[in-house]
Amino acid sequence: MVFGKVDGAFVERLRAVLDAGDLLLGDDERADYGHDETEDLVFPPDVVVRPRNTDEVSRVVRLCAEHHIPITPVGGRTGLSGGALSVHGGVALALDRMDRILSIDERNLQVTVEPGVITQVLQDAVQDKGLYYAPDPSSKGSCTIGGNLAENAGGPRAVKYGVTRDFVLNLEVVLASGDVIWTGANTLKNATGYDLTRLMVGSEGTLGVITKAVLRLIPKPLGSRLMLVPFNDAAKACEAVSAVFRAGITPSALEFMERDAIDFTLKHMEDIKLDVAPEVQAHLLIEVDGQHDDVLMRECETILGVMEAHGGGEVLFAESASEKDALWYLRRNVAVAVKAHAVYKEEDTVVPRYALPELLAGIKRIGKVYGFRTICYGHAGDGNLHVNILRDALTDAFWEKELPKAIREIFTLTVSLGGTLSGEHGIGLVQRPYMDIAFSPIQLQLMRSIKDLFDPTGILNPGKVLPEMIA
Amino acid sequence: MVFGKVDGAFVERLRAVLDAGDLLLGDDERADYGHDETEDLVFPPDVVVRPRNTDEVSRVVRLCAEHHIPITPVGGRTGLSGGALSVHGGVALALDRMDRILSIDERNLQVTVEPGVITQVLQDAVQDKGLYYAPDPSSKGSCTIGGNLAENAGGPRAVKYGVTRDFVLNLEVVLASGDVIWTGANTLKNATGYDLTRLMVGSEGTLGVITKAVLRLIPKPLGSRLMLVPFNDAAKACEAVSAVFRAGITPSALEFMERDAIDFTLKHMEDIKLDVAPEVQAHLLIEVDGQHDDVLMRECETILGVMEAHGGGEVLFAESASEKDALWYLRRNVAVAVKAHAVYKEEDTVVPRYALPELLAGIKRIGKVYGFRTICYGHAGDGNLHVNILRDALTDAFWEKELPKAIREIFTLTVSLGGTLSGEHGIGLVQRPYMDIAFSPIQLQLMRSIKDLFDPTGILNPGKVLPEMIA
Repeated sequence: MVFGKVDGAFVERLRAVLDAGDLLLGDDERADYGHDETEDLVFPPDVVVRPRNTDEVSRVVRLCAEHHIPITPVGGRTGLSGGALSVHGGVALALDRMDRILSIDERNLQVTVEPGVITQVLQDAVQDKGLYYAPDPSSKGSCTIGGNLAENAGGPRAVKYGVTRDFVLNLEVVLASGDVIWTGANTLKNATGYDLTRLMVGSEGTLGVITKAVLRLIPKPLGSRLMLVPFNDAAKACEAVSAVFRAGITPSALEFMERDAIDFTLKHMEDIKLDVAPEVQAHLLIEVDGQHDDVLMRECETILGVMEAHGGGEVLFAESASEKDALWYLRRNVAVAVKAHAVYKEEDTVVPRYALPELLAGIKRIGKVYGFRTICYGHAGDGNLHVNILRDALTDAFWEKELPKAIREIFTLTVSLGGTLSGEHGIGLVQRPYMDIAFSPIQLQLMRSIKDLFDPTGILNPGKVLPEMIA
Repeated sequence: MVFGKVDGAFVERLRAVLDAGDLLLGDDERADYGHDETEDLVFPPDVVVRPRNTDEVSRVVRLCAEHHIPITPVGGRTGLSGGALSVHGGVALALDRMDRILSIDERNLQVTVEPGVITQVLQDAVQDKGLYYAPDPSSKGSCTIGGNLAENAGGPRAVKYGVTRDFVLNLEVVLASGDVIWTGANTLKNATGYDLTRLMVGSEGTLGVITKAVLRLIPKPLGSRLMLVPFNDAAKACEAVSAVFRAGITPSALEFMERDAIDFTLKHMEDIKLDVAPEVQAHLLIEVDGQHDDVLMRECETILGVMEAHGGGEVLFAESASEKDALWYLRRNVAVAVKAHAVYKEEDTVVPRYALPELLAGIKRIGKVYGFRTICYGHAGDGNLHVNILRDALTDAFWEKELPKAIREIFTLTVSLGGTLSGEHGIGLVQRPYMDIAFSPIQLQLMRSIKDLFDPTGILNPGKVLPEMIA
């Protein structure tokens, strides 16, 4: 695709449509806005625009449309699929200065926010009023609501409360034409026309730029209990996951960490200590939350029974807030350890939860055949397994030519188990070559037509989600 | 729009593509499949086709596409917006013979069904295994999952568990071309491409024909408590609704019935007895459910406190299963009484829940100005108010010329309160003229373009959802 060029004249025009917003042109700044948390990829935009309001976004989009300049919306730059990378240069539309919580409606349990609000800032603000915004991606301290919406982000609590999509009521969106629409209404129910709201969620900035969001809140759970359970058999651990739900309990988190994940983390993170018996293959981290402490106790007892019946080992209960923090610190640091101490590629496989052991075994088998190590962990309650493939001493040739074949095998297995490519990271740039595994040409053509409908000239986040060529 | 003609030759072709399915041509049968529960409207198709499997649906759609014959998918014919009416004649594609529950996956808490499965049949089947399919439209004894999906049906429990959309994982759909696709994957999370699943849900058969659905199940709640609370002030009743959530409780039902609704029901249903003091303006019917009976008791106590603080009168607790049934019988019979004893039009307004009293007052004001009576009741927890406008002794001229103006005023008010036209009934045929109140020309044009994309020749349920002409 051939785009217009960002030259001095265009930059001046951009500057002219901004009142309160600003733009950045320096090399460091462009590089800064040209990466997210996806591998070590950097695709600097030609210019970073930081609008302050919807009108400015609309004017910028209109100008880019006129000059056929690519626009890549940028949030907290914590994405893991490369959705925020300016792969065709052009304008990085950074929403980080549109970071106001516009209203917290305590009577209707709704909040209206700009896209640049940090997820945790929103959580804290509503928590102060006894309310709860449940979606909590691991990067909640730095990711933004706009990015969460664009990627349909999840996190540990999704197993009980749902993903970002499930908390959205209505979105203000700037279309590729510069026109501004709301996608729905500020209501819990809506059976009025096509669901543009959920079409926009997870579309990764390729159909429009989200400039405001009305989100649903729920009453804040008053307490929680957390436990760590070792298993000598990873498959049994996954069976225990299903059995917890069958026992009538929906935990607020049900996380899986395979042995390799714990070992890697313990090796690389000096401040984490955990005694793991040699025969342990996997751990489950299980949290329940709710309004009544005695109920949480009873739920824990039920879970204990389920764990025991499935071969779970000695359970480590978090007795205090600091012990809870320590266990979550361990879980979160699996990702941190991999990120800090290895070159790797991460896949975000998701399957029906009972298929998890089969997926895990298959990934290990494929790794063995191709000769690479993987660190697997994730949201077992959702069947969402993060697969970190370590570079180790593999050659460039292997990494570039052979590994994609192995990833293709992993995704083929995932799809054959009723699963799909991404549970919560999105497709972005790096999973795009694998879309044909999950979708037929007819499905892809439908998606491509939707893209063309919303963005006829292809300026919105080009090079993302859909494969470039569809036969 | 000019369509092809269903003549003898076409019927023979139709017959030829059916193996197990059949077709109906009799006047009574066509009339039977040409109505739903929307007013007294009847639009008979030229022929009723009852396929037995997806292949047959695909072949029928292909044949209709070739001959440009309209197709109206038909489920349980319980719809309240006319979605199943064959307004342009052609083929009524009745899915009632595709009524198999294909699998109940107890390990993954999923069920795969054909679209003709009756909602309650599904609920009972999974309940036998300790599982729960929560959406429960009032017509659950005769409506079908396909229809529920097409209209994004709700029901009383939506306030806690969500609407039909929230229970869908994946759909098999026959497109207007006859091609068959799945919209997603059988996973709880999915961030892989555009959300075709939720685009299809609520599209009322205008984008494709749903032929299979994979639905999410949850653990079955073991108990429930139900209470009826009278209020002398309808506005205070609605305030109490918000306060229940603020007190940390999400009821499994929170229903509102205004005085007129109770009076009308008591007058017309001889088997229902309830003493209502003259000063009572409204009732709330409140249910909590869960796994622990003592918690339900505590929640009831909290709710009692909230009710008292908001001027609620003497609470009627259902002490036994039969008393519960009696209270629900009362609630359900508001609709039954109106349906059986009055000519009426029903609107399905929805607003943020705290705006309910303002909406109700506005509807009464508009009724007074125009000179009609309304019976209002609905799902207060969702802000979803069903407005039944009674024909009484109004003239034909009024009903046809003046009433639409009044309805326009009601919807204008609804939208001004942050709400929209339909919470759970869909737009179908009868709300279509009001779509411009909820949506701008740009929004409507987007929706129209999506329709054109999925159904370029306009054969799928023509005359529904979108206004015919968009400037």
